Amino acid sequence: MKVKDIGEFGLIDRITKKPKDKDILIGIGDDAAVFKTRKGLQVLTTDCLVEGDHFRREWFSSAQIGMKTIEVNVSDIAAMGAIPKYVLVSMALPNNIDVEFVDGLYEGMWKTCEKYNIEIIGGNMTHSEKIIISITLTGEVDNKNLCLRSGAKPGDFIFVSDHLGNGRAGLRLFQEGIDGFEKVRKHYLEPKAQLKTALKISPFVNSMIDVSDGLAPEIKHICNQSKCGAIIYKDKVPISDEVRAAAEKLGEDEYDYALFGGEDFELVYTVSKENLEKVNGFLVGEITKNKKISLFSNGKESAIEEKGYDHFF
Amino acid sequence: MKVKDIGEFGLIDRITKKPKDKDILIGIGDDAAVFKTRKGLQVLTTDCLVEGDHFRREWFSSAQIGMKTIEVNVSDIAAMGAIPKYVLVSMALPNNIDVEFVDGLYEGMWKTCEKYNIEIIGGNMTHSEKIIISITLTGEVDNKNLCLRSGAKPGDFIFVSDHLGNGRAGLRLFQEGIDGFEKVRKHYLEPKAQLKTALKISPFVNSMIDVSDGLAPEIKHICNQSKCGAIIYKDKVPISDEVRAAAEKLGEDEYDYALFGGEDFELVYTVSKENLEKVNGFLVGEITKNKKISLFSNGKESAIEEKGYDHFF
Repeated sequence: MKVKDIGEFGLIDRITKKPKDKDILIGIGDDAAVFKTRKGLQVLTTDCLVEGDHFRREWFSSAQIGMKTIEVNVSDIAAMGAIPKYVLVSMALPNNIDVEFVDGLYEGMWKTCEKYNIEIIGGNMTHSEKIIISITLTGEVDNKNLCLRSGAKPGDFIFVSDHLGNGRAGLRLFQEGIDGFEKVRKHYLEPKAQLKTALKISPFVNSMIDVSDGLAPEIKHICNQSKCGAIIYKDKVPISDEVRAAAEKLGEDEYDYALFGGEDFELVYTVSKENLEKVNGFLVGEITKNKKISLFSNGKESAIEEKGYDHFF
Repeated sequence: MKVKDIGEFGLIDRITKKPKDKDILIGIGDDAAVFKTRKGLQVLTTDCLVEGDHFRREWFSSAQIGMKTIEVNVSDIAAMGAIPKYVLVSMALPNNIDVEFVDGLYEGMWKTCEKYNIEIIGGNMTHSEKIIISITLTGEVDNKNLCLRSGAKPGDFIFVSDHLGNGRAGLRLFQEGIDGFEKVRKHYLEPKAQLKTALKISPFVNSMIDVSDGLAPEIKHICNQSKCGAIIYKDKVPISDEVRAAAEKLGEDEYDYALFGGEDFELVYTVSKENLEKVNGFLVGEITKNKKISLFSNGKESAIEEKGYDHFF
C-alpha cells in the first residue's frame, strides 16, 4: 500500500532523480523498489524514530533529524561489518507541518546518504499527529567480514572505538535546559556512524555491536549471544573531559552515561590476543567463560547493575 | 540502533524460533538480519500503519491489525509479480498496552506470514502514544515476470482482479456505526493480497498495480508512468450487491468507493490483445495514446474528477 508517494510532497525532482547505481532497476515510483542482486550476503535493518521519544523539534533542526535517522541505521549495518547500499524511507507527518521542515528533513537525509554512497530507492508518506520516520537500510558483506554478536570467545579483549557518554550527557543537558558544553550537545544532535572504522577492523574482530543502549547492555547482548560473560574495567571506559564536566554540572555520574546511557553509536568489539595489534580503540574489558557480567574498579569486582534503557527515562 | 529487540517483550520464544529457510544466516537477535542472495532481482517495500489513520482499536482486533500490516505489504510485492520472502517488523507501542494485545498482533502477523511462506527476520520495538507498525518486506522476481507501472501500452485492456469498493464501504459503515453488511465489514477488516492471481498473470500483463488508493488513482499512476491515457468504463467496474446496498444505506455513491475509495487490495493490470485469453478478471477500460484519463458511462465520455485520497477523510 502506498499512501502518498514521497515524490508527491512537492519534492518530486529531488527525490526521483535518476539513481546513480546501475543495479537499481526501479527506485521510487512503483509498488516496490527493484534492484539486481549478486550471489553473496545481504544485511537488512529497520528503525523507527518517533518524535518525543527519539528527538524533539525544539532541540533538533529538521536537517539534524534527517541526518540522525540515516546515521543510526548505518551504525547497525556498520556493526555487522557490512557496506550500506539502499534505503527506504517511510514517514508519517502531522498535517500542519511546514514544507520547509520536510525540505530540511530530506536535505539531512540526502547529504548523509551521499556521504555513505547510499541510494534512496523508495518509501512512502502518510500522516500522524507526531513525526514518525521509519528507515530500512540494506547492506552487503562478504562472509569473511561478517561480524556477529555471537562470535565472542573467552579471552577476547573488549574494545570501544571512541569516548562514550556523549549521547546521554547531551540529552540530559537539553532536558535540563543547560547551556554550554557545545561538543557534547553536537554529539547528541549529530551522532555519526563509525562505518570506516567498522570496515577496517571487521576482518579481525570476533564480535561487534554498536552502542545504542549503553556499553553495559551492548556487552550483555554480546555475552548472551556468545554464551559467555565479561569483566568491564570501569576506570578504562573512555569519557571526555567535557562529558565529565557536564555530569558534574548535572549532579550525575558520567559512568552511568557511558555504561547505561546509549545513543553514542560507537562500536564495541571483541578481539583475540592474536589480532590485538590489528585494531585500534580503547580496551575496556575481557570476555570470560563464566557467564556473569561484572564491573572491575579500584581493585574490586562487583556485579553489574541491571538498568533499563529508555530514551527519555 | 535497536531500541528493544522484539524478543524482549515476553514473546521471545515465538519470535526467535529458528528460521526454516536455510538462506537466513541471522534472523532476530543482531544489529541487522543477514541472508544469502542469489544472482537475480530483489524487490523491497515498506509501509507504515498508524493507529487512527489506518486502523482503530475499537474496530479491529489486534490479530486483524497484525494480518492487515502483512497483507498490505504482500499486496505491493504481488503487484510487482514477485514472491514475498522476508519481513522486518518495526513497532512503536504505547506504554500502557496489554501484553494480550501485542500477543494478538504477533499472532495475526505470524499466521499471515505462514500463509505466504514469509519469514520474520528482524525488527525492533519502541514506544509512542499511538500504535505504529512499520513493515519492510523483501521479494524475489525473475526479470521476465517483473510487472511495472510503466509497461502499459496504447490499446491494452485494463482489468481488475475482483469487485471493488469494499474497503471504503467498510470504513464508512464503521465510521457511521451502521451494523450489518458483514461481508463488506470483513473485507475491510481482513483485506487479502491477491498473490496467487498476481503470480499467475504476471508473465502476460504489460503493467500492474494494487488498489490501495482506488481504481482511478491507480490507473492514473499507470498512465503517468507509462506516458499514456485511459478510458475507464464506469458501468463495467465490478461492485458487489452488498457494497451497493451499503452505499444506498449511507446515502453515498458506490462508484466513488470503487474509483476513489481505496484499501481494496485487488490488482489492476493492463493486457495486450494477444494475451487477452491468458488472464482472468473484469475488463474495466482501455489504455489510450491520448494522455487524458476519462470515464465512459451511458454512452458519454467525461473527464475524471481529481479526488484526493485520505484514509479517514
